[in-house]
Amino acid sequence: MLRWLTSGESHGPALAGILEGLPAGVEVDSAQIRQALARRRLGHGRGARMNFEQDELEVIGGIRHGRTQGGPIALRIGNSEWPRWQEVMAADPADADGRRYDEPGRIPARGRAAALTRPRPGHADLTGMQKYGFPDARPVLERASARETATRVALGEVARAFLAQTVGAEVLSHVVSIGTQAVAEGTVPARGQRDAVDADPVRCADPEASARMVAEIDTAHGEGDTLGGVVEVVVHDLPPGLGSYVHWDRKLDARLAAALMGIQAIKGVEVGDGFETARRRGSQAHDEIERVDGGEGTEGFTVRRRTDRAGGLEGGMTNGEVLRVRAAMKPISTVPRALDTVDTASGGAAQAIAQRSDVCAVPAAGVVAEAMVALVLADAVVEKFGGDNVEQVRANVRSYLDSLEVKVAPTP
Amino acid sequence: MLRWLTSGESHGPALAGILEGLPAGVEVDSAQIRQALARRRLGHGRGARMNFEQDELEVIGGIRHGRTQGGPIALRIGNSEWPRWQEVMAADPADADGRRYDEPGRIPARGRAAALTRPRPGHADLTGMQKYGFPDARPVLERASARETATRVALGEVARAFLAQTVGAEVLSHVVSIGTQAVAEGTVPARGQRDAVDADPVRCADPEASARMVAEIDTAHGEGDTLGGVVEVVVHDLPPGLGSYVHWDRKLDARLAAALMGIQAIKGVEVGDGFETARRRGSQAHDEIERVDGGEGTEGFTVRRRTDRAGGLEGGMTNGEVLRVRAAMKPISTVPRALDTVDTASGGAAQAIAQRSDVCAVPAAGVVAEAMVALVLADAVVEKFGGDNVEQVRANVRSYLDSLEVKVAPTP
Amino acid sequence: MLRWLTSGESHGPALAGILEGLPAGVEVDSAQIRQALARRRLGHGRGARMNFEQDELEVIGGIRHGRTQGGPIALRIGNSEWPRWQEVMAADPADADGRRYDEPGRIPARGRAAALTRPRPGHADLTGMQKYGFPDARPVLERASARETATRVALGEVARAFLAQTVGAEVLSHVVSIGTQAVAEGTVPARGQRDAVDADPVRCADPEASARMVAEIDTAHGEGDTLGGVVEVVVHDLPPGLGSYVHWDRKLDARLAAALMGIQAIKGVEVGDGFETARRRGSQAHDEIERVDGGEGTEGFTVRRRTDRAGGLEGGMTNGEVLRVRAAMKPISTVPRALDTVDTASGGAAQAIAQRSDVCAVPAAGVVAEAMVALVLADAVVEKFGGDNVEQVRANVRSYLDSLEVKVAPTP
Amino acid sequence: MLRWLTSGESHGPALAGILEGLPAGVEVDSAQIRQALARRRLGHGRGARMNFEQDELEVIGGIRHGRTQGGPIALRIGNSEWPRWQEVMAADPADADGRRYDEPGRIPARGRAAALTRPRPGHADLTGMQKYGFPDARPVLERASARETATRVALGEVARAFLAQTVGAEVLSHVVSIGTQAVAEGTVPARGQRDAVDADPVRCADPEASARMVAEIDTAHGEGDTLGGVVEVVVHDLPPGLGSYVHWDRKLDARLAAALMGIQAIKGVEVGDGFETARRRGSQAHDEIERVDGGEGTEGFTVRRRTDRAGGLEGGMTNGEVLRVRAAMKPISTVPRALDTVDTASGGAAQAIAQRSDVCAVPAAGVVAEAMVALVLADAVVEKFGGDNVEQVRANVRSYLDSLEVKVAPTP
Repeated sequence: MLRWLTSGESHGPALAGILEGLPAGVEVDSAQIRQALARRRLGHGRGARMNFEQDELEVIGGIRHGRTQGGPIALRIGNSEWPRWQEVMAADPADADGRRYDEPGRIPARGRAAALTRPRPGHADLTGMQKYGFPDARPVLERASARETATRVALGEVARAFLAQTVGAEVLSHVVSIGTQAVAEGTVPARGQRDAVDADPVRCADPEASARMVAEIDTAHGEGDTLGGVVEVVVHDLPPGLGSYVHWDRKLDARLAAALMGIQAIKGVEVGDGFETARRRGSQAHDEIERVDGGEGTEGFTVRRRTDRAGGLEGGMTNGEVLRVRAAMKPISTVPRALDTVDTASGGAAQAIAQRSDVCAVPAAGVVAEAMVALVLADAVVEKFGGDNVEQVRANVRSYLDSLEVKVAPTP
Repeated sequence: MLRWLTSGESHGPALAGILEGLPAGVEVDSAQIRQALARRRLGHGRGARMNFEQDELEVIGGIRHGRTQGGPIALRIGNSEWPRWQEVMAADPADADGRRYDEPGRIPARGRAAALTRPRPGHADLTGMQKYGFPDARPVLERASARETATRVALGEVARAFLAQTVGAEVLSHVVSIGTQAVAEGTVPARGQRDAVDADPVRCADPEASARMVAEIDTAHGEGDTLGGVVEVVVHDLPPGLGSYVHWDRKLDARLAAALMGIQAIKGVEVGDGFETARRRGSQAHDEIERVDGGEGTEGFTVRRRTDRAGGLEGGMTNGEVLRVRAAMKPISTVPRALDTVDTASGGAAQAIAQRSDVCAVPAAGVVAEAMVALVLADAVVEKFGGDNVEQVRANVRSYLDSLEVKVAPTP
Repeated sequence: MLRWLTSGESHGPALAGILEGLPAGVEVDSAQIRQALARRRLGHGRGARMNFEQDELEVIGGIRHGRTQGGPIALRIGNSEWPRWQEVMAADPADADGRRYDEPGRIPARGRAAALTRPRPGHADLTGMQKYGFPDARPVLERASARETATRVALGEVARAFLAQTVGAEVLSHVVSIGTQAVAEGTVPARGQRDAVDADPVRCADPEASARMVAEIDTAHGEGDTLGGVVEVVVHDLPPGLGSYVHWDRKLDARLAAALMGIQAIKGVEVGDGFETARRRGSQAHDEIERVDGGEGTEGFTVRRRTDRAGGLEGGMTNGEVLRVRAAMKPISTVPRALDTVDTASGGAAQAIAQRSDVCAVPAAGVVAEAMVALVLADAVVEKFGGDNVEQVRANVRSYLDSLEVKVAPTP
Repeated sequence: MLRWLTSGESHGPALAGILEGLPAGVEVDSAQIRQALARRRLGHGRGARMNFEQDELEVIGGIRHGRTQGGPIALRIGNSEWPRWQEVMAADPADADGRRYDEPGRIPARGRAAALTRPRPGHADLTGMQKYGFPDARPVLERASARETATRVALGEVARAFLAQTVGAEVLSHVVSIGTQAVAEGTVPARGQRDAVDADPVRCADPEASARMVAEIDTAHGEGDTLGGVVEVVVHDLPPGLGSYVHWDRKLDARLAAALMGIQAIKGVEVGDGFETARRRGSQAHDEIERVDGGEGTEGFTVRRRTDRAGGLEGGMTNGEVLRVRAAMKPISTVPRALDTVDTASGGAAQAIAQRSDVCAVPAAGVVAEAMVALVLADAVVEKFGGDNVEQVRANVRSYLDSLEVKVAPTP
């Protein structure tokens, strides 16, 4: 079982994450994790913050000479802006000279230290203040911010390496829609196309749709508005049988749904054709099975599905086809045109504060979604195959695949 | 923390479920649980099985004189068809006379004892055989079958009673669409309308749409086809602050997504307006906040959201508005017109076996979805409020609500 | 990961347990589980209850034709005394005629229906009443009673079969001391001696000590007193590397300690020589390693430890030697001579009620301890080796053992 | 539910820990945590390492201006020796100039970079190499080392603050025995005596025994040997009802046993009088209950136990008396006089490497044990009382205690 925890505030000194349960021997280095963090800043429509948000990565533990060691992996992602925030976000009540931060005049209650009493609709602000009894929204937004996803991406990159080196799977994502613009039906990037997708301004695999998406972002930007959209994570070459139908919470689709819905701003999740499937007739909704080895009898028996409507998941298990899961992201809640709210300090009507200026974060959401999917799949591989190092896992995978009387060839 | 496990095969002697972690003092009796099980059989378009599938309920433990006792609750749901299956599904290898079931001729390999070697597309059959090394699909379909959801409904009824008696919430569901027919936009049943919805032939809250749905079911039935659809679970009167933004897997939307996606045949989950939100502009996608107490200053401060696009969940927490979550169900995979597959015993092409004859199970899926939502919410209440009996939970809830400086009035 | 829950009250209709996570293909039948339950009633010094406590076993799910099916296993152990308790312990508030059990005179408040308001020292009674807000101790003792361990023994028997059929380990136990009487130092039953131990009146492997133990029990019985003691669980032929040092809660000794301390009446746990080790010098406390294959170089390299002071666990992992863990059981708290307490109904001083008449339950505690150890070890095997059926697990075990450059020969 | 993970290698750049689930508003600052880390270095008989092992603490997240914020708390404890280890323990395969660490001659295979192929008896070394497939013991001892407990102490200090500020409990520890020297029976430090115990050279509450312990350490040191011993954690002023009898793994004694046995070198755990209780008669083994308020009837009803043999735990729950749990530590495995082992590189007999020179780490083990107990108790408080900030927890505690008809006065 993989376990992982993340910590850290948006403007604190750093973010941190620990991942426990991964076998030893996974080849991964800090350059690769830094590269993953850079991918999270991709996408037309991002504001200034993405540029200064340099990710200073430290591998605190769990990796030595480029290989995981079997123990928990800890990563620290430093905040390059920390010097400007160190009083506002100080851990201790007083500075090195013993002066308390809450002394009158100590931190001027303006600028970044101002009390945030106009909770933003669409954010955790108001409910977070209620739940934890905070007089302002600062502690809420510091932790609820999507900045936290950097840790997930970093840990997810280790999980991705594990998947590649054990079952040989490749995890990638692409943008399916932004606002009202969507890719052509059936657009699914092939294995190896991750770099090509990343090179697109909105991480879209359909160039024509990409141009329309960019235009829609520019229009929204001009009108002081924001956009959401849908991303799809695609995983090639997973073995059949990850997850299980035997208990609801072992179903891989349930675990993937939680992982994706647990990303900031995600309001919907689909597996395969998802909601579209619910509109189809049964005769048109499933993936018929056919033999593809050309042989007879049960010698060298290989099948494939004729379609992949199920997104590679049947009965809560990978079926050997391409895995496809989608996440719907709401438009960024911090709308430049400002939404109505109340001021909790005065009781009066107010305009919600606008903390940042991104128009659309959908391309980056795909990168975060990849990380979450990689973590869930790595957990499922550990669960099914056991093993304490990469060689053992590989041997167990091979032994399983060799034992199958019916093999699966994924739909090309 | 609530923990619960279910067990049992579709044609075994019984199903069983154990729910651990619920406080003492919840008033619930077996009649109420039986009633919940009967609701699971509702809906136009169900086949013969639903009628003979009498649910013989035994409360094995955890409830005494109509109240939970603080310990794990175990329920057993007997299978009235068991006498006809007791050889095929016997736990032991031999009967009382010591004759082994696998002796030649012992169980005739036909009828309900026939080897199931034509795995059905859309089911766990083929992958389950691969994963567990089974020579036929019998063990797979016995456990993967939706019959298992009876246990969830039974346990969920206890969770529902807990919610009603502690926070005062009401959990209900309604059918949003079947096939291509959908309710009018904005259809959300009010508190107290559960019986009215149940009285509708497809558990739909929009009578005009209901008639169209029934017609679509009848057409599909006539054409040997099946239908899916979308259900929505609606929960009234939850306090703000269930779930948390502080860690991804404590987000209530993530937990709800897993719970719903973990129901058999569900391929998509939405919170609030879900995928539709992803198409909207930011200025039209969130729920603006306004004061509603008519006062000034911070005395008697009550707010509400002007809309409930978020479905009552912001930042992974209930915000005090009506909770709305949707699940998309694929059409029943066992299509009377039969889908193409292979015969794993012969290696030849085959038609998938058709085990049952329902056309549409969407109305019942709503009842199962209610149960799953109730279990997740009960867990969130236990987590937030602690307490070992209903009175303590109630006192803790009251103390929390009284402490809120900003109260929430749900949108009417 | 194995998960398991138990439910049921001591005088309720039945106990129930569900075990989730065990691979398919484990050979086990109900006779074997019944036999395990019978072992739990062994031992000189048990009272009348053990005789009438017939265990009516039903396999509700998870096992078919003598093999586990990969899904959760549910067992129900009926209470043959139920007819005499069905009003006192009824799940519903009213009987079939609708008469409520709390109506005046409905259940006479005497005999087994009397309110238990004199909490017994050494039991959960008083604190359980406080925690859950119960006016009497009935609901507490019903669940806290050691009767519940029958479920653990039943589930543990399935785990034991799994261990035997995958890694080839054998789990047994013996009584190390009762009261002041103990076995000769170094008494450790060899593989295959389980039946011999069971044949002893106090499940002791040292006949001379056994006679002293029996005499001590008889003396205590004559004096209206009770006895505790120490049991040891011994596991032969575990592979090295179960558990892990990488995180505290993955250490096998930590998991075993919880499992044993979680048995009713256990107040101490030791691994290997335990507390005795704490008194030794370092030079005399560890197990030196030596080569035993007679060869040179690294060809055919096999080592063993010269001693097994560590009880087969180093760094939280099995090291290939014989696993030995001990549990100290306090004397039965229900002392015939009656302990002082208060009557919570009157506020006056009182004598604690005496509900049963066993003098010593230590021999049976060994059987329960075996079950708990088997469950923990089965979990560790599933964690280390993965696999969804017994053949896959076996293949993965073999592959791991073959890959070891240094093999371990257990101390004979 | 509290969750926490630790990471980091003994000679890596730092250790890290994340603690998730603690309510907001706990007052704690870095000075307090540093002080806790300093306590872990206490004790006569520690070697040189303890002096240079400066703990450079960074609060990465979860605490602001001296209060927890509701989100996960991350702590980083820097290794002041890192510059000397940065090649040997580098996370990346190559240095900044791209030279790989495994290039011939890159890191001289001697000194701290030498392959550790003589696994030490009593350590994880040999089994760790087998389990993870490592050619030497370096990665094993780096993670298995007791250096890791610094993280637990740091996180435990936050848990301790939570306990003090919510239920008002105080957690302390003392040394019960070292080698063959033990305190007088009945030695239990009172509330407020933590500093006094810390001032003792072996953290012993019995000055006469302390002198004998120091002498035994000096003798062992002179003879090139090491010592173990027993520590006891004592917790004053816990409310009754933490933990539960309803399921084995919710029993507080089971959870405490795991927490203590999961500390490096612990081989035994006792609750209250533990193994001694197993030798007593039932009439002498339990804690009789008496009324102490001097009143009559049920007005102002307060009881206490006449003794605390149970160590404050009955039925797996705190009973309101002083909690007492003990842990037996084996002598340090790295014995200066060197133990026999094999050299896995050559296959020949060898002497185990001696990595450090402590004689006795028992006094420090008490500090680690306090941390583990504090973490378990904090979890139990969160479970029983819920609440998202300290005020809410306090209110829920008060409400519960006020509702008790029978109060408990702890034995003075």
